[in-house]
Amino acid sequence: MTQISARPATVATTFDVAGVPAGAAGHTRIVEADLERRWLQHTGLLEEICRYAMLPAGKLFRPVLLIESALAVGGRLDTVLPAAVGTECGHVASLIHDDIIDDDDMRRGRPSVRARFGDANAIVAGDLLIFRLFHYLADCHDAGASAERVTAALRATAMAGVDLCLGQAMESELTGRLDCREEEYVEMASLKTGALFRGACEVGGLLGGGTRAQAAALARYGHHLGIGFQICDDLLGYLSDPATTGKAATSDLRNHRLTLPLILLLRQGGDDGRRLIERAFAEGSADVAAVTEALHHCGAVPAAQQIARDHCDIALEQLRNLPETIHRDALSSFAHLAVRRVC
Amino acid sequence: MTQISARPATVATTFDVAGVPAGAAGHTRIVEADLERRWLQHTGLLEEICRYAMLPAGKLFRPVLLIESALAVGGRLDTVLPAAVGTECGHVASLIHDDIIDDDDMRRGRPSVRARFGDANAIVAGDLLIFRLFHYLADCHDAGASAERVTAALRATAMAGVDLCLGQAMESELTGRLDCREEEYVEMASLKTGALFRGACEVGGLLGGGTRAQAAALARYGHHLGIGFQICDDLLGYLSDPATTGKAATSDLRNHRLTLPLILLLRQGGDDGRRLIERAFAEGSADVAAVTEALHHCGAVPAAQQIARDHCDIALEQLRNLPETIHRDALSSFAHLAVRRVC
Repeated sequence: MTQISARPATVATTFDVAGVPAGAAGHTRIVEADLERRWLQHTGLLEEICRYAMLPAGKLFRPVLLIESALAVGGRLDTVLPAAVGTECGHVASLIHDDIIDDDDMRRGRPSVRARFGDANAIVAGDLLIFRLFHYLADCHDAGASAERVTAALRATAMAGVDLCLGQAMESELTGRLDCREEEYVEMASLKTGALFRGACEVGGLLGGGTRAQAAALARYGHHLGIGFQICDDLLGYLSDPATTGKAATSDLRNHRLTLPLILLLRQGGDDGRRLIERAFAEGSADVAAVTEALHHCGAVPAAQQIARDHCDIALEQLRNLPETIHRDALSSFAHLAVRRVC
Repeated sequence: MTQISARPATVATTFDVAGVPAGAAGHTRIVEADLERRWLQHTGLLEEICRYAMLPAGKLFRPVLLIESALAVGGRLDTVLPAAVGTECGHVASLIHDDIIDDDDMRRGRPSVRARFGDANAIVAGDLLIFRLFHYLADCHDAGASAERVTAALRATAMAGVDLCLGQAMESELTGRLDCREEEYVEMASLKTGALFRGACEVGGLLGGGTRAQAAALARYGHHLGIGFQICDDLLGYLSDPATTGKAATSDLRNHRLTLPLILLLRQGGDDGRRLIERAFAEGSADVAAVTEALHHCGAVPAAQQIARDHCDIALEQLRNLPETIHRDALSSFAHLAVRRVC
């Protein structure tokens, strides 16, 4: 796999409390203020549910990626801000529906939408947020993006959403399968997580006025960044306590999902490793402490970390297609961050 | 309410077996052939589920409305065909999610998607079809629609989807409420059904190259047609046998939903009528035969029919903004059809 050279000298080296590069922290505040403004105007239970799901906001990775991508190709923040908010709507919609599918009652350290408002409301709220994603994309035309660019962004957004759904379906199909291969996991991660990252970066490049080549490079950057991010996310449960991630570490084991670390444990952990996972899949409860210890003992954790770093390296390479600006540096910081937080 | 004059002399007077005006029957075949073609290319469980949900196709009212609207303003069929297929995707997505919410195991006379493939798959399949709606809208640009018109259609489609969700939420909020007013029912129907009809007609007008005034007239036509259509749909359960509609006549009573005929029964049916509905709402099962008889006896059926006809009359009036063509006549036939099938 291609190796990237040293981290760019100009890259921002500090991070704010939310884990977002300091240079992008201002953008998270702008996005959050826009979210607040949009959901203040609405009334009714459904909008209240959406507000509950959207605010307080998460890390806003996708909106910030979209904005930095747009700025990196010379675009304007106010032109792409609606699309940035929209990409968060699409992401939160997938979380709301995911929590119904996985029977998850907790999200970001508090009751999930389905736990708080019921499955029926959660289904409709997710649908509404998908339509808002496209509604806000149309708003970018009023904010200065040409119709040609909005139409190109429409296609990129729709295809990202299609891939996201295919990834969710693939995840379901792989559930319970102990023979899930590394390549299948990576494909699932590229669809389920890589697609929205790719869509956010590509849409930023398109609406920001980038060339076709720049938008394509940003799409590839987002794709690989998303895969690296997903691998790290799957590792987190075995590295930190549930309070940090707001999600039970046992979620994947409980849902009988073979994430990359578990695939590597099956490959590298001998009979003991296999028995641990088989027992977790066969019985209702998993011995998370034993699995965690085995993961570290057999080298599955550093192996998974290396694969995540490889994808981040490919992501970083794509940025060479962009002019040297503080926004390219911010995107570079993001790629490092996606790995560094767990490596 | 404004009264419409006699039915236009030039209107098509025959209908094919599917209940679609004969002139539009060719379009349903073209849409169905396009659906077949699109879902032949795909593989995997999720696409199989979408194919199951989409084919064999229903009456394809929304795609045909979109196409006739486009042709009525001078547009081309091949330019808007992807959007026509897309509007059916959006409609079917709402049916799939509705059946989860309502616990309905039957749809169009066979197992619903959730009954056949489970709730989790049904959620993701519905999401995928929403993204396909927007994907196919983007395809219209490649098929000859200008980016300006696709962007305008994007906004109209997204807003129709938002309203659809608000309508579904409003329906849930009204569930079990015996004090639901006629105006609330009409607002719910205009959101839940009128929105997609409005969206289909408006998008047809926009992508077909119509003027702003023509697109707005088509939007109003679709809006009122949708309300009339929904009233008729709610009446159907009390007029025909379940085999005809593929949906149990008891569905609304079982789900404790006060549809327009029931609201009118409460208003006009005296203490006996009220007791019938209260009993149906309080107990698990409803005496559908007794409710049906009471609906006819107290005049609730003709009263609901009249309200449906009033909305169709308003819909018909909007068509005066369009040039006299066989496509305007087809739209006129649709409005008559939406009422005639139950009046």
